[in-house]
Amino acid sequence: MVACSLTGISKSPVGGFFDAALRGVGQVFLQNNPLTGLLFLVGIFLSSYVTGLYALLGVAVSTATALAAGVDRSTVRRGLYGFNGTLVAIALATYVRHGYALVGYVVLASMAAAVLTAAIHDFLNSEHVPTLTAAFVLTAWIFLAGLRQFSHFTSSPASARPQLPAGIPHTSGALTPSDLLFGFFNGFSQVLLQTGLWTGVAFLVGILVNSRLSAVVAAIGSLIGLGIGWAFGMPAGTLHDGIPGYNAVLTAIALGGLYYLLSRWSAVFAAIAAATSVVVYAMFATVLSPAGLPVLTAPFVATTWACIFAADSLTRLRAVHPADAGTPEVNLRSARSSPGRA
Amino acid sequence: MVACSLTGISKSPVGGFFDAALRGVGQVFLQNNPLTGLLFLVGIFLSSYVTGLYALLGVAVSTATALAAGVDRSTVRRGLYGFNGTLVAIALATYVRHGYALVGYVVLASMAAAVLTAAIHDFLNSEHVPTLTAAFVLTAWIFLAGLRQFSHFTSSPASARPQLPAGIPHTSGALTPSDLLFGFFNGFSQVLLQTGLWTGVAFLVGILVNSRLSAVVAAIGSLIGLGIGWAFGMPAGTLHDGIPGYNAVLTAIALGGLYYLLSRWSAVFAAIAAATSVVVYAMFATVLSPAGLPVLTAPFVATTWACIFAADSLTRLRAVHPADAGTPEVNLRSARSSPGRA
Amino acid sequence: MVACSLTGISKSPVGGFFDAALRGVGQVFLQNNPLTGLLFLVGIFLSSYVTGLYALLGVAVSTATALAAGVDRSTVRRGLYGFNGTLVAIALATYVRHGYALVGYVVLASMAAAVLTAAIHDFLNSEHVPTLTAAFVLTAWIFLAGLRQFSHFTSSPASARPQLPAGIPHTSGALTPSDLLFGFFNGFSQVLLQTGLWTGVAFLVGILVNSRLSAVVAAIGSLIGLGIGWAFGMPAGTLHDGIPGYNAVLTAIALGGLYYLLSRWSAVFAAIAAATSVVVYAMFATVLSPAGLPVLTAPFVATTWACIFAADSLTRLRAVHPADAGTPEVNLRSARSSPGRA
Repeated sequence: MVACSLTGISKSPVGGFFDAALRGVGQVFLQNNPLTGLLFLVGIFLSSYVTGLYALLGVAVSTATALAAGVDRSTVRRGLYGFNGTLVAIALATYVRHGYALVGYVVLASMAAAVLTAAIHDFLNSEHVPTLTAAFVLTAWIFLAGLRQFSHFTSSPASARPQLPAGIPHTSGALTPSDLLFGFFNGFSQVLLQTGLWTGVAFLVGILVNSRLSAVVAAIGSLIGLGIGWAFGMPAGTLHDGIPGYNAVLTAIALGGLYYLLSRWSAVFAAIAAATSVVVYAMFATVLSPAGLPVLTAPFVATTWACIFAADSLTRLRAVHPADAGTPEVNLRSARSSPGRA
Repeated sequence: MVACSLTGISKSPVGGFFDAALRGVGQVFLQNNPLTGLLFLVGIFLSSYVTGLYALLGVAVSTATALAAGVDRSTVRRGLYGFNGTLVAIALATYVRHGYALVGYVVLASMAAAVLTAAIHDFLNSEHVPTLTAAFVLTAWIFLAGLRQFSHFTSSPASARPQLPAGIPHTSGALTPSDLLFGFFNGFSQVLLQTGLWTGVAFLVGILVNSRLSAVVAAIGSLIGLGIGWAFGMPAGTLHDGIPGYNAVLTAIALGGLYYLLSRWSAVFAAIAAATSVVVYAMFATVLSPAGLPVLTAPFVATTWACIFAADSLTRLRAVHPADAGTPEVNLRSARSSPGRA
Repeated sequence: MVACSLTGISKSPVGGFFDAALRGVGQVFLQNNPLTGLLFLVGIFLSSYVTGLYALLGVAVSTATALAAGVDRSTVRRGLYGFNGTLVAIALATYVRHGYALVGYVVLASMAAAVLTAAIHDFLNSEHVPTLTAAFVLTAWIFLAGLRQFSHFTSSPASARPQLPAGIPHTSGALTPSDLLFGFFNGFSQVLLQTGLWTGVAFLVGILVNSRLSAVVAAIGSLIGLGIGWAFGMPAGTLHDGIPGYNAVLTAIALGGLYYLLSRWSAVFAAIAAATSVVVYAMFATVLSPAGLPVLTAPFVATTWACIFAADSLTRLRAVHPADAGTPEVNLRSARSSPGRA
C-alpha cells in the first residue's frame, strides 16, 4: 500500500521529516495518515498553486521549529506540530497577496504556531483535551489582525472589510439542487479555506483512505450543517459556499468516534454538537466583523472543546484519551479488547 | 411548610423533575429552594407570560438533557443544570419575537447550555470555583450574536443595535425618590432581564423565603450599585432601570456569606466587590456594543470568579467549598460545629 | 550601597511598606529592587508630576489592600502586589483628566488590581507561570472601558476614539537617525505609557542598576522591535514613539535569562518571541480599536505566557520557576551550583 511505503521512508531523517509534514497536512481533518495528507495537498494545489507552495513552507517551518526546540519527536512525527503551520500559511496566502514581506511574515507565523501548539498542548494535557486547530486559529487571527498596522502588505480580494454586524435580509432566493451539491462538498473545501467541488472531493477521498467511519460521519456532518443553515434562514449563496458545513464536518469527525467511542448516544451527541457549531459559526461571524477577521475553524474548536471538557460529567459517553485516539475503527477495536478502560 | 411539601413530591420521578426545575429557577439568585423558584416564576409571569412559557421550556430541556447525558443526579436535583437553560430561554424570548424558528432555537440553546454547564463545572471543579451563570451568559451571547446571520428571526424592540461605544453626556436630570425606589427593586428584576416594581418585590421575597441574611446582603448590594452608579455619573434613567444594581446584588449574595463565610472582613470585601461589579458592567457595556450584545450577568460572573480564584491568597477570609455552600446561615452553623474546616 | 540601605529600612513596618512600594514600581520591568523603583519614579515624575502622584496613590492602595486581605507578606514585600496598582493608576491618569471622581476611581481600581493579582497568581501557580502585568492590563481595560458609561470624567487628549480598524497607508516618509534614537529609548518609556528620551534613559539605568545582563537583553529587545516594525512597514512616527519596542523590551527581559536560563538557544528563542510581540501588538491595536482601548502591555503578557506555558514541551530550554527567578546573573549562578535542578 502507498500508505505503508510512505511510512517506510520515515526511517531516514529526511524521509521522516516528509512523513511528519504529510501527516501534518492530514491532521487538518484529524487524520494521522501521510497519504491523506498527500490527497489534501492535491486538493489545495487544484484550488491554487501559490497557496499550495505557502502550505509547504508553513508545514516545513513549524515542523522544523518544533524539532529545534526539542519537542517530543513522536508527537512531531504524528504531524501535530506541522498542521497548524500549514493552516496559518494557507490563511495568510488566502487573504494577502504574495510578496517578500509575506514570506517573512509566514515564516514568523509558522514558528509562532509551533510554540503556541506546545503551549496549548501543555496547558490542556492535564485535562485530557486535544489542542485541535486552536493554535492555527489564534496565530492566524494575530497575524491577520496585525496586517492592518503594517504597510508592506496588500490585501487580497478575499479579505473582509471591518464593519459593524448587520442582520441579513429575508430573502426569497430559492435553493437549487446545485447549491446543495456544492454546499455539501464545499463544507469540506472550506476547512482549508478553499472553495471548489473537486477540492472537496479530494478532501473526502483523503478521509476515506484513512477511515470509512470518519468519512461517513463527516458526510453526515456536512448535511447537518446545510440543514441547520437552511432551517434558520442562511442565504442560498452562503449555503452554496459550504459556510455552515465546514465546522460541522470537523465537529462530527472529532466527537463521532474519535474522542468519544462511537455509540448510539455519542452519535446523537455528535449530531447535536454539529448542529450547534453552525450557531457558534454565526456568533463568531458577528463578533469578528468589527475587526474584519475571518471565522476560520474557531467554531469547531470551541464546540468540540466544550463537549470534551464535559467528559467527566457526561457519564453516558465514553471518552478516548487524545494520546490513544486513532480512527473510530481502531478506537472501537481497542475498547473491545480492553472493556474496562475508559 | 410549602417548601417541605414541594420537597416531598420530589420522591416520585415526575415530582423530582419538577422539584429540580423549580430549584433551577431559584438558583438564578443562587437559592437552592423550589419555593423560591416558584416565586421567581410568578415574578417572570407578572412581567410577561410569553417569556414565562419560554422559561419553562428552557428549564425543562436543559434539565432533561443533563439527565439523558448521564450527569450526576444529585447535582441536577439541586437545579444546577436547569437554571442556565431558564435564563438562556428568557434572554432569547426577550430579544427575539416568538415564532416557530425561535422554539427550535431555544431548544438547541438549552441543550447547549446544559453541556456548557458540565464543561465549565468540570474545568473549574479542581479549583473549587462555582460555575455561577457563566454557561447562561456564554450560550446566550452565542445564540444572540448568531441571530444576525439567520433571516428566520425578528428582533424585538429590546434588542441593541451594533454601534461603536460613545461617551454619555453630562446630564443635569435630577434623581427623584421614585427613581431610587424603582432602581432598588429593578436591581432585582434585571437579574432575569425584567423591569418592574412588583417583579423585583417577588424576587426579593423569593430570596427572603430561603435566607434572611442573603436577602439583607442582596438589598445592600442593590443600594451599593445605585450609589456607585450615581457617584460616577450614570444617567437617572439608567439608575431607574436598575442597571448598576443587578450585578451588585448577585455579587453581594455570592461573596457575602455564600462562598465566603460571613464576617466583618468578608462583608467589607463583598461590598467592595459589589461596587467593582458596577465598573465591570460598564466595561462590558462598552466592549459589547460593536457586536450589539447585551451585558447579561457577565459582570457578576467575572467579579465573583476573580474574588473566589483569589481565595488561597486572601487568608483573612474563609472560603466555603461550592459543594458545601448552603445559605449564609447554614454555612455559619456548619463552621461553628467544625471550626477546623475551611 | 543605596540599594542596601533601602533594604535596611525595610525592618521597620513603615520602612517595609515603602520598600515594598518601591520594589512594586521596579517590578514593572520585572526588577525586584527598590533603587530601580526609585529611578523609575524619577522617570515618571520627569514626564508628568500629576501622573507620578497617581502612581504613588496606586502603589500605596494596592499594597495596603493586599496586606489587609492577608496576602503572604513575603510576596507583597517583593513588590508583586504594588506594581499592578502603580500601572493602573498611571494608565487612568494618562487617559483621564484629574478630578475628585478620578481619585475615587483610582482607589477602587487599585483595590481591584490587588485582588485580580491574587486571582491570577492562584490560578497560574500550579502551572509555574508568573502573573506578569496581566492584572494591570485587565484592570486598566475594565476601568478605561467603563469610563464611557459614566459622565463624571473627562477624557484627556491621549485617549483613543472608538473606531473601526483601518489599514495604514503606504508612506514614503523616510526614517531619520533621530527617529531611531527616540524609538530606542521610547521603547522603554512606553512600558509606563510615557514618551521622552530622558524618561527612557532613567528606565534603562534603573534596569542596569539591578542587572547588567537584563539591561543588555532589554536593549536588544528594543532594537528588535524597531527592526521588525520597520521591516513590515510601520510609519516613521510610530517607530519614533517606541510603539513596536516596548513589548519586545519586556518579552526579551522575561525570556532572556529570567524565566528561562540564559543560553544560546534561549537567546534565539527570546529574540524570536520579541519579534513576534510586535505582531501581537499590531493585533491588539486592531482588535481593541472599536472599543477605543489602548494596547498597554497585553502583547508582552500574551507572548511571554505562551512561551512559558510551552516550557514542558520545549526541552531545549531550561525553565526557571517564577518563585526562584532572580536576575539572569543570579539564575545562572544557582544553576551552576545545583546543575540537577530545572
